[in-house]
Amino acid sequence: MSAARFVFDFDEPSPGGRELLGGKGIGLAEMTELGLPVPGGFTITTDAFRSYAIGRQLPEGLAEEVRAHVAALEVKCGKRFGDHDDPLLVSVRSGAAVSMPGMMDTILNLGLNDEAVEGLAARTGNPRFAYDSYRRLIQMFGEVVDGIDPRRFPDALAALKRERGARSDADLGAEDLRALVASYRGIYREEKGRDFPAGATDQLMRAVGAVFDSWDTPRARVYRGANGIPDDIGTAVNVVQMVFGNKGDRSGTGVAFTRNPATGARELYGEFLANAQGEDVVAGIRTPQPVEAMALIMPRAYEELRAALRRLEERYRDMQDVEFTVEDGALYLLQTRAAKRTAAAALKAAVEMVEEGMISREEAIVRIDPASLDQLLHPRIDPAEALKAAAKGLNASPGAASGGVVFDAETAVERAKGGPVILVRTETTPDDIHGMIAAQGILTVHGGMTSHAAVVARGMGKPCVAGCEGLSLEEGVAHLAGHDLREGDVITIDGGSGQVYVGKVKLVPPQLNEDFETLLSWTDVHRRLRVRANADTPEDAARAREFGAEGIGLCRTEHMFFGEERLPVMQEMILAEKEPGRRAALERLLPFQQADFEGIFAAMSGLPVTIRLLDPPLHEFLPLEEQASDERMRARIRVLHESNPMLGMRGCRLGLVYPEIYEMQIRAIARAALAVEARFGEAPLVEIMHPLVGFAEELRRLRELTERVWMQEAPDMPHTVGTMIELPRACIRAEEIAGEAQFFSFGTNDLTQTALGVSRDDADRTFLMHYLEDRVLERNPFEVLDTEGVGGLMRIAVAGGRARNPSLKIGICGEHGGEPRSIAFCHGIGLDYVSCSPFRVPIARLAAAQAALAQEGASRYVAAGG
Amino acid sequence: MSAARFVFDFDEPSPGGRELLGGKGIGLAEMTELGLPVPGGFTITTDAFRSYAIGRQLPEGLAEEVRAHVAALEVKCGKRFGDHDDPLLVSVRSGAAVSMPGMMDTILNLGLNDEAVEGLAARTGNPRFAYDSYRRLIQMFGEVVDGIDPRRFPDALAALKRERGARSDADLGAEDLRALVASYRGIYREEKGRDFPAGATDQLMRAVGAVFDSWDTPRARVYRGANGIPDDIGTAVNVVQMVFGNKGDRSGTGVAFTRNPATGARELYGEFLANAQGEDVVAGIRTPQPVEAMALIMPRAYEELRAALRRLEERYRDMQDVEFTVEDGALYLLQTRAAKRTAAAALKAAVEMVEEGMISREEAIVRIDPASLDQLLHPRIDPAEALKAAAKGLNASPGAASGGVVFDAETAVERAKGGPVILVRTETTPDDIHGMIAAQGILTVHGGMTSHAAVVARGMGKPCVAGCEGLSLEEGVAHLAGHDLREGDVITIDGGSGQVYVGKVKLVPPQLNEDFETLLSWTDVHRRLRVRANADTPEDAARAREFGAEGIGLCRTEHMFFGEERLPVMQEMILAEKEPGRRAALERLLPFQQADFEGIFAAMSGLPVTIRLLDPPLHEFLPLEEQASDERMRARIRVLHESNPMLGMRGCRLGLVYPEIYEMQIRAIARAALAVEARFGEAPLVEIMHPLVGFAEELRRLRELTERVWMQEAPDMPHTVGTMIELPRACIRAEEIAGEAQFFSFGTNDLTQTALGVSRDDADRTFLMHYLEDRVLERNPFEVLDTEGVGGLMRIAVAGGRARNPSLKIGICGEHGGEPRSIAFCHGIGLDYVSCSPFRVPIARLAAAQAALAQEGASRYVAAGG
Repeated sequence: MSAARFVFDFDEPSPGGRELLGGKGIGLAEMTELGLPVPGGFTITTDAFRSYAIGRQLPEGLAEEVRAHVAALEVKCGKRFGDHDDPLLVSVRSGAAVSMPGMMDTILNLGLNDEAVEGLAARTGNPRFAYDSYRRLIQMFGEVVDGIDPRRFPDALAALKRERGARSDADLGAEDLRALVASYRGIYREEKGRDFPAGATDQLMRAVGAVFDSWDTPRARVYRGANGIPDDIGTAVNVVQMVFGNKGDRSGTGVAFTRNPATGARELYGEFLANAQGEDVVAGIRTPQPVEAMALIMPRAYEELRAALRRLEERYRDMQDVEFTVEDGALYLLQTRAAKRTAAAALKAAVEMVEEGMISREEAIVRIDPASLDQLLHPRIDPAEALKAAAKGLNASPGAASGGVVFDAETAVERAKGGPVILVRTETTPDDIHGMIAAQGILTVHGGMTSHAAVVARGMGKPCVAGCEGLSLEEGVAHLAGHDLREGDVITIDGGSGQVYVGKVKLVPPQLNEDFETLLSWTDVHRRLRVRANADTPEDAARAREFGAEGIGLCRTEHMFFGEERLPVMQEMILAEKEPGRRAALERLLPFQQADFEGIFAAMSGLPVTIRLLDPPLHEFLPLEEQASDERMRARIRVLHESNPMLGMRGCRLGLVYPEIYEMQIRAIARAALAVEARFGEAPLVEIMHPLVGFAEELRRLRELTERVWMQEAPDMPHTVGTMIELPRACIRAEEIAGEAQFFSFGTNDLTQTALGVSRDDADRTFLMHYLEDRVLERNPFEVLDTEGVGGLMRIAVAGGRARNPSLKIGICGEHGGEPRSIAFCHGIGLDYVSCSPFRVPIARLAAAQAALAQEGASRYVAAGG
Repeated sequence: MSAARFVFDFDEPSPGGRELLGGKGIGLAEMTELGLPVPGGFTITTDAFRSYAIGRQLPEGLAEEVRAHVAALEVKCGKRFGDHDDPLLVSVRSGAAVSMPGMMDTILNLGLNDEAVEGLAARTGNPRFAYDSYRRLIQMFGEVVDGIDPRRFPDALAALKRERGARSDADLGAEDLRALVASYRGIYREEKGRDFPAGATDQLMRAVGAVFDSWDTPRARVYRGANGIPDDIGTAVNVVQMVFGNKGDRSGTGVAFTRNPATGARELYGEFLANAQGEDVVAGIRTPQPVEAMALIMPRAYEELRAALRRLEERYRDMQDVEFTVEDGALYLLQTRAAKRTAAAALKAAVEMVEEGMISREEAIVRIDPASLDQLLHPRIDPAEALKAAAKGLNASPGAASGGVVFDAETAVERAKGGPVILVRTETTPDDIHGMIAAQGILTVHGGMTSHAAVVARGMGKPCVAGCEGLSLEEGVAHLAGHDLREGDVITIDGGSGQVYVGKVKLVPPQLNEDFETLLSWTDVHRRLRVRANADTPEDAARAREFGAEGIGLCRTEHMFFGEERLPVMQEMILAEKEPGRRAALERLLPFQQADFEGIFAAMSGLPVTIRLLDPPLHEFLPLEEQASDERMRARIRVLHESNPMLGMRGCRLGLVYPEIYEMQIRAIARAALAVEARFGEAPLVEIMHPLVGFAEELRRLRELTERVWMQEAPDMPHTVGTMIELPRACIRAEEIAGEAQFFSFGTNDLTQTALGVSRDDADRTFLMHYLEDRVLERNPFEVLDTEGVGGLMRIAVAGGRARNPSLKIGICGEHGGEPRSIAFCHGIGLDYVSCSPFRVPIARLAAAQAALAQEGASRYVAAGG
C-alpha cells in the first residue's frame, strides 16, 4: 500500500470517518460492516478532492488506485467493467461530510457503450431496459461531464414521444429507445464534435472529476452559504455497482425512514415506486406509493427492509433515512443518513428515545437543533378558518405563511424585497434554491414528501405544500380550484395540514406541545444563562411567561406613546416650544404609561422587568412632512429631520436635553410599582434602563435624575438603574460606566450597526445581500452575532464592567438573544441572561443548555444533523 | 501658626505657588520679593476657596486669620481699617491659577462708610475724590455682593447728570457726588431692605465670599469651557491696600507690556489713562493714551516703570503684562502676568528671546501654543482690495473674516448656526462671551488694544477691530461711514490692519513669515511623527509642501468626478443598469483621473502620496430628486436613497459591489505613475488606500483586485496597498486586517461618528451643543480627539496591527491630525505620521515636536500661557 491512499472499498477499514469518506461513503461502509445488503463499491476520499481542487487535476496515482479497486469489484461480482458480454455497471455519487441533498451530481450506468448495451440486453433478456439505461447514461454524462444544454436530451425524447404518439415514457418500446440512443449520441457528437466515449475507465475517471467540479456550482455555493457549511471541506465520490429498480415489476426503488420524519411517531415511513430508478423518486416526477405497498408485492424484500431499518436505528441511535432499491426481488441499501425531520418529529423522537432507553437526556438536548424549533413557534392557521381552504396537498413542511404568488426563483428574490412571497412551481429543482431562500413558503403541483421541495423546505424550516391537487400552472397564471392567480396575488399555505387558501388568512400563535415541554424541562437543569423575553405589553409578557421566560429583559416604552388617545398628546409635547408646554402634555401622558406598566408588572409578578426609557428620535411620532396637517407641524418635522437618525437625537440624549420626558416615565414606573404592590402585596422587581449611553457622565446624570424622582414617588420601593451597552464607546469605557450602573444590557442590534458601520434599514437592499451571496461574509451579522467584531467589543465591556463592579448583572436584549450560536457566545463570555422575543424563549432555553453542556466538555453527546 | 493656614502676606514665604495663591497672588508676592513697588496686602488661598465651595461657608478660622493680616497691614501702612479719621482702604481681587481676564469680580475701596469718607476727604483735601470712591464702593458692593440690578446705579448717575446738565462724570463736583452717595445708599436700602453695611470687616468678609461665588457665574463657566480650564481649581482672593489713580493729574493708571503683544517687537508697549482707576481702562469706556505719554507728564514714574518691566521679563523669562497705578507721582505695580499675545508676537518674542540668550530653542518650542498658530494661517485680505475699506479701527486681533452683522450675543449664537457672523458692539463685556465664541470676528465702537474685546479676541484667535472710527450704533442699525447696516448685512474685518469693509472681500492665503520658519526649523529636529497633508489637487499639494508637509496622507478622489465635463459621465455610470454600461462611462472618466493624479504626483515628487479610492455614496453625485431632469434619474435617486447614508453603501462596499469603479481608479493611478516617471525620471511613491474596511476579507479581495490591475498596467512600479481604519470593527480586528495591509490610516472623523454613535452632520444642531454647554462633554469630540473612547479603539488597532505586521506604517488622516492635543495622543500611541489640511501642517509640526519633547521628560521647559 502506497503512502497516499485515496480509495477505500466499502468492506475494508479506513483511517478516517465522515470527514474523509463523506456521509454517503461512511454509511455504505458501516452498512457493509453490519452485514446489510449493500452493492459492492468503493469511496474516493475528500483528500482526493482537496488535492484535485488545487489545480483541477486528479491527483497522481488516483487512476491506478481506482483501476485496482475496480478490478477487486470485478472479482467480487464476477462481471467485468467495459465487458461487451456481461458488463459491470457502476454509478458515481457525490457524498460530502455534510448532507447537501440534490446539490451535487450523480451519474448512473457507467460502463455501457454500443457493444456492452447489447450484452446487457442479451444477459437480462430485457433490451428495453438496456437501451433505457444507456440513454440515461448518455444524457447524464452529457449534461454533467460535458455541460450540454439540459434541454437538448429531453427535447429529443419529447419529439420521439410525439412522433410515436406515446403519452408516457412507458409507452416507448425497446426499438424506440434504441432509436433514442442513436439520437442522443447524435446530439452528443453535434455538441462536442466527437463521439460519446466508449471506454469504461475513461467514462469513470471523467465522471469522478465532474462530481468534484459539481462542488463549486453556484447552487451548491448558495446552499452552503444558507446552511453555514464551509466551502473547503469538499466532497468524496462513491463508485457503486449498479443495481436496477427499473427491471420490471419485481423491481423498484424507494426511501424509508425509521420513524415518521414529520411527526416523529415510531412507525415505518416511506415511499416506494415500482419499476423505477432512484432519481425518479427524488426528482418528484412520478408520485410514489407509501412504502407499506411493498408488503403486498414483494413481502420478503419488505421484511428485510424493516429489519434493516431496526438495525440501523440501533446502530446510529438516531432516526435514519435510507435509500433502497429492489432488483428482481433482492433488496439493496444504497444510502443511510440521519433523517431530516421536522422540529416536532425531532422532539418526539428524542423524547421517546430517552423513554426507550436508547439515549440519555443530555444526548436528547444536544441533538435538537435549536434553530429548528422556530418551525414550531411560527403562527398556525386559525382552526376556525380551516374550512375555507381552496385546495389541499401534502403537508410537506409545517408552518403557515401568506404571501404574493411568484412563479420563478428570480422573481421570488426580487419581489421578496418588497414583502413576503410564496414560490409556486410545478416542481422545484436545485436551481431554485435562491428563490426558496427568499420565499416565505413553497407550493408545488407535483412531488411527494421526499421530493426536492419537501426536503429542502423542511431543512429550511419553511412551510411547504407539495403535490397540490387542483393546482395547475400556465404561463404567468396559476389555476387553483377555480381561482386564477397572477403574480403578486396573495395566498396562504399551511404546511402542517397541506391546506392552501386564497388571500390572507388569520393565523394564531403557537403553543408548546408535551414533547417540547418535556425536553425544555430537561434543559432547565443544565443551563446557567437565565432566559428573559423582550415584551412591551401585558399580553406579550404573559405569553413569554408561558414559554418559560424568567423576566423581561427589554420592555420598550415607545409604543406607549402611540394610540388614538395618546399620539396627539405626544405630538403636542413635541411641538411645544418650551419646557412648560412639554411638561403639560407629559402630565397627560403619565396615566397611560402608568396603566401600561401596572399591567406588565402584574403579568410578571415575582420576576424582574427591565424598562427601557424612551429611545427613538421624536420625529418617529410625527407624520411624514407631506402628510402633516399644518405649517407648524411641517416646520417641526423639518427641524427634527436628521441625515442619519440612527446616529442622532435619541436614547439618553433625549433624556438629557428634555429631562422632563424621562422624569415623567420614571414617575409613571414608580407609581405603577406602588399600585401593583398595593394590589398584590408584592413589590415588582423594577429595573430602569437608560439607552444609548456612550459616556459615563450621561449615565451619572440620568441616574441622579432617576433617583431624585424615585425618592419623590416611592422612596422605599426597591429598584435598580442600568444601561444598554449599544455603542462601541460604551464597550471601551465600560469600566467607567459600570461605576454608575447596576446592570448592563447589550443592545446588539445597534452595537452591530455602529461597530460595523452598517445601517440595518438599508444594508439588505444595498450591499449586504451581495456580500452574503458573494461570500464576503459567511453570515448576516444582524441574524447571527458577529462574535469576532461585535463580540470582541462585548468581551471588553464584560471585562471592564466586572472589573469595576463584580456584582454587575449583564444581559443581552438585541435580537441575537434568541439565536442559538449567539447564545452560545453569550454563555461563553459569562453573561447572566439573554432576552429575546417571547416565541424564541424556548429556543433560547435549549441553546443555553446546549452551550452549558458543551462547556462541560460533553463531547460524548452526538451532535445533531450529520 | 495653626495647622491650616489660609492667608499669606505678599512679603512672607508660602508653601505653595501659583496653584495655591493664584496668578495674581503669586505675581504680587514675587514682585514684592524683587523689591518692586507693590501695595501692601495678602492672599487668601485657593485652599480656602475649595473649603468654601463645599458648603458655601467661609472656612473656620479664616475670619480671624484675615483680621490678623489686616492688623499687620495696618501696622505697615500706619492706617487703620474702618478708621473714621484716616481709613485704610483695600480692594478685593480674584485671582485663579489660570488667567480669566474680566471673568470674575473685583471690589474696590472697601473700608469706607459715612464717617470714614469724611475722614478721607479731610486727609486728602479732596472731597470729590472721597465721595467718588465711596459711591464706587456702594455700586460695586451692591452689584457684586448683593446682586442689585446693574442698571440701577448707572441710571441714578445718568439722572443726576441730566439734572445738573453735566456731559461727563468729570463735570460733577464734590457736592454732586455727595448727593449721589445719598441716592446710591437709598437704592441699596430700597433693594435690600437694610442699610449699606458700615463695618469694614463685615464689608471685607462678605466681599471675599462674593469673589469666591463669582467663580461660578455662567459667564465664567462658559469661559472655562471654551478654554479647557477645569471647574474645580477655584480662585484665590487678594486683599490689597488701595492706591488711587484718580487723585488728580499726577495720578493715573495703565497697562504695560514688556514687548508689543501684537507684533512681538521688543519695545515698551501699553496704555495709560490719567486721573482714572484701573477699571476705567479695562472696561474700555474711555480711550486711553499710549504709555509713552507718561514720559512727559510723570517722567520719574515712567522710568521706574521701564526699569520694573525689564526686571520682570528677566525674572520670568517671558513677555509680561503689568497693571500699574500712579498715585500722586508714586508708581505701584498691581499685577504681573505672562502677556496674552498674538501668535505672531509669540513667535517673534520666542525667536528673539532665543537669540538674546534668554531661553533655549526647546523652551521656545514648548512655549508656543500650537492652536494659536491658526491665527497666522488664516486668510488675509487681498492687498489689492485694501484701498476699498469703509472705515478703520485698531488692529486689535489679527486675521480677516466676513459675516453677517449681529448686534448682540444671543443673536450671534442663533445666526451663527446658519453662517458666519460678525459681532458688532459698542463695547463687549464678559456677558458677551458666548456671542464672541459663536462669531467669526468682533467689531467695536469703543475700546483700545487692552479692552475686553481685544484681549478676549486675541485669546480666541479671532479677528477683532476695536475703537472703530466712523462707526456708531442705534437700535438695530450700524452706521458705518455712510452705510446703514442691519442685522445680516455682510461686512468684512481685517484685524491685522484694522480695516473694515462693507460686503464680502477677497481673501488671500497666508504665508509663513521668517520667525515662523525659524521656529519650525527647530521643531523638525525634535519630532518623531512625520507630518503629511490632506490634499486633493496639485495646488493644495504644492501649498502643503511649502508649509513643510512630508507627503500626502489623504488624497480624496471624489472631487475628480465633479466638474462640467465629468459629472454627466459619472451620472451616466450611476444610471447604467448593467456592468458594461458602467464600464463604458468609466472608460471616459479615466483620462480625467489620470491627469489629476499626474498633477499631484508631480507636485509631490519624492514624497509619498496616499490615494483613497472612491468613498462617498453614489447619490452624492446625483441632484436632489426634485431637481432631477427625468424620471429615470428620479427613479435611480429613490433607489439609492438611504435612511442612514453614513452607515451605508459607500467606501469599499462600492468597490466590492461595483469592482469596475475601483479598477478604473487603480488603472488611472498606475498610468499616471508611469507617465510621471517617464517625465521626471523618478517614480512617485504611490500608496493606494481602501476606505471603510470592516472585515479582513473585504481588504483581501480589494488587494487582489488592486494587484491584478496593477500587474496589467505597471508591473514594475513600486506601490503599497493599505486601508483606512475608520470603523470600530476594524480596530477590534486590526490584527487580521493587518495581514492584508501595508499601512493603516485612521479616519477619525468616521471612527468618532461610529464609535460614539453620533452623526456629525446633525449633532451640532441637536444635542452636541447642549452637551458642551451643559458640560456633559468637556470638548467637542469632532474637534479634539476623544482619546478615552475613540483613542481606546486606536490603541487596540495599533497593538493588533503591529503584532501581525511589525513594519505596518500607521497614520491618521481625520481632521484631528491637525489638532495639537490629538497629535500628542498620536505621538503617544506610536503612530508614524499625522495628516491634516495644508494650513495646519505648521501647527502639526510644532505640536509633534512638543509631544516628543514632553515625552523626553522635558518638564524643565516652562509651558506656554500662564
